[in-house]
Amino acid sequence: MCPHHNGDSLPNDPSQMVGIDMSNGARTNGTAPAAKANGVNGHSNGTTAAAKSNDLQRRNPYAPRASDFLSNVSNFKIIESTLREGEQFANAFFDTKTKIAIAKALDAFGVDYIELTSPAASEQSRKDCEAICKLGLKAKILTHIRCHMDDARIAVETGVDGVDVVIGTSSFLREFSHGKDMTYITKTAIEVIEFVKSKGIEVRFSSEDSFRSDLVDLLSIYQTVDKIGVNRVGIADTVGCANPRQVYDLVRTLRGVVGCDIEIHLHNDTGMAIANAYTALEAGATHIDTSVLGIGERVGITPLGGLIACLYAANPEYVKSKYNLTQLREVENLVAEAVEVNVPFMNPITGYCAFTHKAGIHAKAILNNPSTYEILKPEDFGLTRYVSIGHRLTGWNAVKSRAEQLGLKLTDEEIKDATAKIKELADVRTQSMDDVDSLLRVYHSGIQSGELAVGQKEALDRLLRKHREEQMSRDSSVSRPASPSPIAA
Amino acid sequence: MCPHHNGDSLPNDPSQMVGIDMSNGARTNGTAPAAKANGVNGHSNGTTAAAKSNDLQRRNPYAPRASDFLSNVSNFKIIESTLREGEQFANAFFDTKTKIAIAKALDAFGVDYIELTSPAASEQSRKDCEAICKLGLKAKILTHIRCHMDDARIAVETGVDGVDVVIGTSSFLREFSHGKDMTYITKTAIEVIEFVKSKGIEVRFSSEDSFRSDLVDLLSIYQTVDKIGVNRVGIADTVGCANPRQVYDLVRTLRGVVGCDIEIHLHNDTGMAIANAYTALEAGATHIDTSVLGIGERVGITPLGGLIACLYAANPEYVKSKYNLTQLREVENLVAEAVEVNVPFMNPITGYCAFTHKAGIHAKAILNNPSTYEILKPEDFGLTRYVSIGHRLTGWNAVKSRAEQLGLKLTDEEIKDATAKIKELADVRTQSMDDVDSLLRVYHSGIQSGELAVGQKEALDRLLRKHREEQMSRDSSVSRPASPSPIAA
Repeated sequence: MCPHHNGDSLPNDPSQMVGIDMSNGARTNGTAPAAKANGVNGHSNGTTAAAKSNDLQRRNPYAPRASDFLSNVSNFKIIESTLREGEQFANAFFDTKTKIAIAKALDAFGVDYIELTSPAASEQSRKDCEAICKLGLKAKILTHIRCHMDDARIAVETGVDGVDVVIGTSSFLREFSHGKDMTYITKTAIEVIEFVKSKGIEVRFSSEDSFRSDLVDLLSIYQTVDKIGVNRVGIADTVGCANPRQVYDLVRTLRGVVGCDIEIHLHNDTGMAIANAYTALEAGATHIDTSVLGIGERVGITPLGGLIACLYAANPEYVKSKYNLTQLREVENLVAEAVEVNVPFMNPITGYCAFTHKAGIHAKAILNNPSTYEILKPEDFGLTRYVSIGHRLTGWNAVKSRAEQLGLKLTDEEIKDATAKIKELADVRTQSMDDVDSLLRVYHSGIQSGELAVGQKEALDRLLRKHREEQMSRDSSVSRPASPSPIAA
Repeated sequence: MCPHHNGDSLPNDPSQMVGIDMSNGARTNGTAPAAKANGVNGHSNGTTAAAKSNDLQRRNPYAPRASDFLSNVSNFKIIESTLREGEQFANAFFDTKTKIAIAKALDAFGVDYIELTSPAASEQSRKDCEAICKLGLKAKILTHIRCHMDDARIAVETGVDGVDVVIGTSSFLREFSHGKDMTYITKTAIEVIEFVKSKGIEVRFSSEDSFRSDLVDLLSIYQTVDKIGVNRVGIADTVGCANPRQVYDLVRTLRGVVGCDIEIHLHNDTGMAIANAYTALEAGATHIDTSVLGIGERVGITPLGGLIACLYAANPEYVKSKYNLTQLREVENLVAEAVEVNVPFMNPITGYCAFTHKAGIHAKAILNNPSTYEILKPEDFGLTRYVSIGHRLTGWNAVKSRAEQLGLKLTDEEIKDATAKIKELADVRTQSMDDVDSLLRVYHSGIQSGELAVGQKEALDRLLRKHREEQMSRDSSVSRPASPSPIAA
């Protein structure tokens, strides 16, 4: 029952799909009425239909708002934590070779930081941390430790560029986890931060379970560590349940209290980690924690690919200039294989139907202009869009496009007539692309020969029956060659 | 490489996991310091440590804010569209039997509405719509049509409780899809709405691609249809790229313009559909469209399970009283099988590691009080939590819990010593639960017999070697019985 997606494979039955290359932009047919180009936040400035069309493609109603002076949606850094948070995923047991392969792939994608498991976790963790520091990657290397001098002393010897320090500040964690009070937490934080800084290494201080911490305690300790020169403070939604407006409020409040950078780490238990990260950037956060496919404790954290999707939608040019987007699928496949999971079918960008259009009404508009139903350009990620046509929801515009690809000249009325037959057949059984192509060819030759006219259902049935019989007799005498796939990866 | 998750199966190697039953609440050991119970939005009112603990469990810092007078987070309806939007998923080809099974399962879960594919799509779609209307479900049955009298005339004859009407209003769709202007759209909308109402059937009017529509056009048509008595207006993020603050702004603005209910339909292309739905409710939306696992065009829409997760986190009692949460996994498995996908590993609630805790620091706190790292109670969904312990990130608290389950009396120092050995072995190879249990038993009997004391690494290695040799000689003479699984589904 489970189609396996290895990145090179395709939607479960490629024969039902047609690859559409529209890399040169929309096919505008000039017959559409000149539409008013105002989006909710947009401005109209075009005049002719053609100018409108270009304007529609250029303008991006999802771009950051001018009024958002705090927003870092077009000015952020990614702290990639697959090799730290990701190692806490139930299925993750990375050996040295795998860790190095993942680190290199993340570096090739262009993440700003790579965060590693604490060298205090185990002897092998320490060795791996040192090995990755020696790779000479462009990304800065961080390790993540408890707020404790024992851990800090080990961390600064590994060769990392920075140390991420964390301690639970919520009443929940203070009572049920480490049992320390705020005075002790503050004292230890200062000691650890000053020690790491004295070694010339970047240091971040983060609370844990920040959204259930006392706000005054939280702001107080952040202000203290900011004053002694911490490079970054971190907010963590450790239990994964903050919602976007809570995130916005807390980050914005913190932005008014500290001068240093602000990082945010968001668990995904209720599926809001991508949106929360986006909203944190709007409120002035500077650094977002991600992991590939979101792997981590429980259902994990903000996934790298999902974050890229929403930031690309806001500002494609910035995201394209900063990251090698065509590497995304590769790094996802590498990690998926290492932790033995499938790339989820509904994954943003790389989910196997992310660029597949099915409903007739959608297919028609996509064929006119992909921007109608797509805000991500598949070609920017090295991917291709598909229009699925052999089903009961199909529309005649998609069928017309296919007929044109096959070089069959049919009038719109003839196409509509053929489409009705496809829908009728698909009500009984899904039609493969081969089935659709055969029907179109039979229809076309019937029209050419005069054996068929629009609306002659019985004539069409007779021609189709005849075609099937001929095919069966051919099949029984020779083996059929494999039909060429119309699909690119 | 791909573990298949069929709902009854378990994390990839159950022998590495331990099921923890904490349905009776937290184990508070009384030694934790009395913590201040204020969350960011909470209030402290407890006095003793025990009272604090109860207070911590009762209070919910994620509950709706008193100031959110518009919020419908605790007063909403779900329009379940697996049988409409879901049918537009590339893999979905539902026959009548499957449609009926899904409709019944959704009704058993308790969704408020079930939306079906337009009866105008195909003859079979019309028949299926009629068949589902005749099932006598508690949920109201809706069908979804284009804003066109031809479709409306067919829809009102099927027996549905309501008709959802949609038309593209964005400049993109007006130019590249249907080519109609706002005057025409308004005129047709009025005609269709008045016709459906005249038949005594509920009617909704929705724009399509609302976030790229002209705001004035949009509000104008919503106001018009509200005045003629439409039951609901719908906003649709058809391209799946709105962000939470845009959703909040548009819904809140609309809330001030119309008196009728407000529905929202959100695509998930950038992974923000759950958060956008939550934020829409905060701004005053009343109805949320979902599909099971989010299936639909491209990567689909707001998933039912994810929406339930975030609304449960906000108000568990309301969500528990309204829906049969233990049915969630069943309906997800039914749909996953019908469309031949896996339940994604990181799915909220039912993802196969959603309640698995791995890091030592997490395991310790979870054992003290599950609320430390969980905002969803697995038992409310008929599920169980696990603590994974045989890996290099393990901690002595998790190991101690396992030793107690095995009835082995060991001091904390002895547990810490045994934990160091587990971490050392796990650095080389993941330790199964059997491996961990054997080690603990060998350690315990060594202590009992006086052959072992804390810190005697060589003595422990010798005892483990001896145990392995004995085991091998046993294995070669008798076949071992299957070890009982400690895991419940």
